[in-house]
Amino acid sequence: MNERRADPEIRLARAYLLRVAEPPATALAAFIRSHGPLEAAKLVREGACPNSVLSETAARRTLDFAERDLAEAARRGARLVVPEDGEWPAWPLLPLDQATARGKPGLSPPIGLWVRGDGRLDEAVVSAVAIVGARAATGYGEHTATELAYGLVRNGMPVFSGAAYGIDGAAHRGAIAAGGPTAAVLGCGLDAGYPAGHTALLNKIAACGLVISEYPFGTPPARHRFLVRNRLIAGLTEGTVVVEAGIRSGARNTATTAGVLGKVVMAVPGPVGSSMSAGCHQLIRESAASLVGSLDDVLETVGKLGASLAGRTPRPRRSTDGLGEEALRVHGALELREARYPERIATDSGVPIDRVRSVLPELELEGLAVRSDDGWRLTSRSRPVSPLGGA
Amino acid sequence: MNERRADPEIRLARAYLLRVAEPPATALAAFIRSHGPLEAAKLVREGACPNSVLSETAARRTLDFAERDLAEAARRGARLVVPEDGEWPAWPLLPLDQATARGKPGLSPPIGLWVRGDGRLDEAVVSAVAIVGARAATGYGEHTATELAYGLVRNGMPVFSGAAYGIDGAAHRGAIAAGGPTAAVLGCGLDAGYPAGHTALLNKIAACGLVISEYPFGTPPARHRFLVRNRLIAGLTEGTVVVEAGIRSGARNTATTAGVLGKVVMAVPGPVGSSMSAGCHQLIRESAASLVGSLDDVLETVGKLGASLAGRTPRPRRSTDGLGEEALRVHGALELREARYPERIATDSGVPIDRVRSVLPELELEGLAVRSDDGWRLTSRSRPVSPLGGA
Repeated sequence: MNERRADPEIRLARAYLLRVAEPPATALAAFIRSHGPLEAAKLVREGACPNSVLSETAARRTLDFAERDLAEAARRGARLVVPEDGEWPAWPLLPLDQATARGKPGLSPPIGLWVRGDGRLDEAVVSAVAIVGARAATGYGEHTATELAYGLVRNGMPVFSGAAYGIDGAAHRGAIAAGGPTAAVLGCGLDAGYPAGHTALLNKIAACGLVISEYPFGTPPARHRFLVRNRLIAGLTEGTVVVEAGIRSGARNTATTAGVLGKVVMAVPGPVGSSMSAGCHQLIRESAASLVGSLDDVLETVGKLGASLAGRTPRPRRSTDGLGEEALRVHGALELREARYPERIATDSGVPIDRVRSVLPELELEGLAVRSDDGWRLTSRSRPVSPLGGA
Repeated sequence: MNERRADPEIRLARAYLLRVAEPPATALAAFIRSHGPLEAAKLVREGACPNSVLSETAARRTLDFAERDLAEAARRGARLVVPEDGEWPAWPLLPLDQATARGKPGLSPPIGLWVRGDGRLDEAVVSAVAIVGARAATGYGEHTATELAYGLVRNGMPVFSGAAYGIDGAAHRGAIAAGGPTAAVLGCGLDAGYPAGHTALLNKIAACGLVISEYPFGTPPARHRFLVRNRLIAGLTEGTVVVEAGIRSGARNTATTAGVLGKVVMAVPGPVGSSMSAGCHQLIRESAASLVGSLDDVLETVGKLGASLAGRTPRPRRSTDGLGEEALRVHGALELREARYPERIATDSGVPIDRVRSVLPELELEGLAVRSDDGWRLTSRSRPVSPLGGA
């Protein structure tokens, strides 16, 4: 377990940056990535940044509630988790970076995440599965969501959802009945008390799992925020199960995003006359989702991905396949026998020091790097690769 | 429309051969193909045939009820349709030949088909879709089968099924309600009156469509005959829809056969807790069937196949792609400007005259050959090809 904690200054900077632009702030996220959060926060405050960043931050850049937000979080039993923390779920979120680099709009990784609940974020996402679906679910859909969530948690797989009425709530309840953990990712601030009828449910989720949001306290729910939030539900999990969805629904949006991110997408079938199953059937028919008719199907489908990857490349989680250019450069600057400090790696790789500090834990999660008292080195199972990815 | 009628001697020979071995008699079918039905019948009667054919025919070869069977058929308003008849559905059944040639067991084409009903067999199979499923169907399944069959017939697509209780019966009823046609393919003689509760239904099917069997009069139903019959349901149609099926079911067998024959395979989803939908879900999950959630899905899926073939090769139904070696040889012996009699084509191609007579109508159906008063010639849309299929 990586116990590292970000510098307080970095946490303050990211708290400021989280409030300064409406997620997903693509230009701002790239700006932070290039300059590191401290420098980026300073430049944004001064307005000394490219027009793309200025336009994202113009309305709020003079407001700094970072200290107040962090104090408010502490008061509410919450905290801000940032990429520089050991518990940051760097690996699951990496496809958001990669999709953004491929030019997919709206999929920037979060600048930080407000988290309520005692568990570690990096542990909650291990083998996590999202269960999503319609608010106007049928009894059949809610029953199926509850049963699936219960079974997944009993099999050691945390259940993520969005805390909405209908399928979301049923999934959380099934997971809680199994003893948790479950995590709710919100499209509003942790204090918004939304949906109103789920206040008690959110308290139960926080008691056995996590309630997560990238939105600062006081942010009200809004339709666009649910859609933006969906990328986090898809990103934080290994796979997404759509239990019931109409032809146009937010759950289908989450499934599509999960597909773009290379995660496993699954859908539960239902009676052909039910409009609440029409979206699921369409996903299956278009080969955008695998049909899952039972808990075993979900376990097999999520497991299958690992199996099929393993079939393609030995030790998939030790390979540099799938790493972005920056991560490859950091990886290429590591040595097998000699540990190096991040400053040295930044100099050698040409990657900014803040990004090096962010990438190294990702490589560690991937089994490609290991830290020691005198810095970082390659793992014995990881062979050096050229920046172009050749062996 | 091809009004040709087989010689009475050929019909008698095939009536004898249909009774002499239990379908699918792979060796006998190949023997008939090599020697033609007249010579094959003579040799089988004399026992002058290879051991493989002898073993299939040993028990019954001395019994000749051909004339009696044909008379019985006439008395019952039925007839024997043989490959030498103009109404033989040569093209849809061609994949049975091809699968047999690839060594797939149990898929020999029928030696002839007993048919009750006024319609022509070659017309009944145009755009036909099979709807099959469990006998122990749920109300949901029967309702869905009825609705689908009704909609297909209204869209000009005849519905084939097996006249069993449950999904089969519901499909026939929906097709009849739409005015037909519908066709039932039986695993027993046309006179077996099976299933007992469906005698009235079978009469209605014959009144607006066809009742079909390769089994001679007096053949009782048997489990293995239903499975053997399934290749005809799959073979005579463009696609098969499984509405409800348990994990092990005859309907899944039909679907698998349809897949082997290169036909479209579709399955209707249902509630995940229903064991009657488990076979459908498995077919979809294994990518052995496309999910169809509505009539439009079926129309699109069956239509899609044609569209996708059209995308691959221009004028797919004028191409020699998919022809067997024998058909290619017959095709290669045809000329564009000069009509030839089958005898000349047999000499030129080295294909036995009976097979030439059988293959030419297949080529005609395919738009590759045309008949005139002075014999057969290539169509202007068909270019000569070498026996190896090169252009």
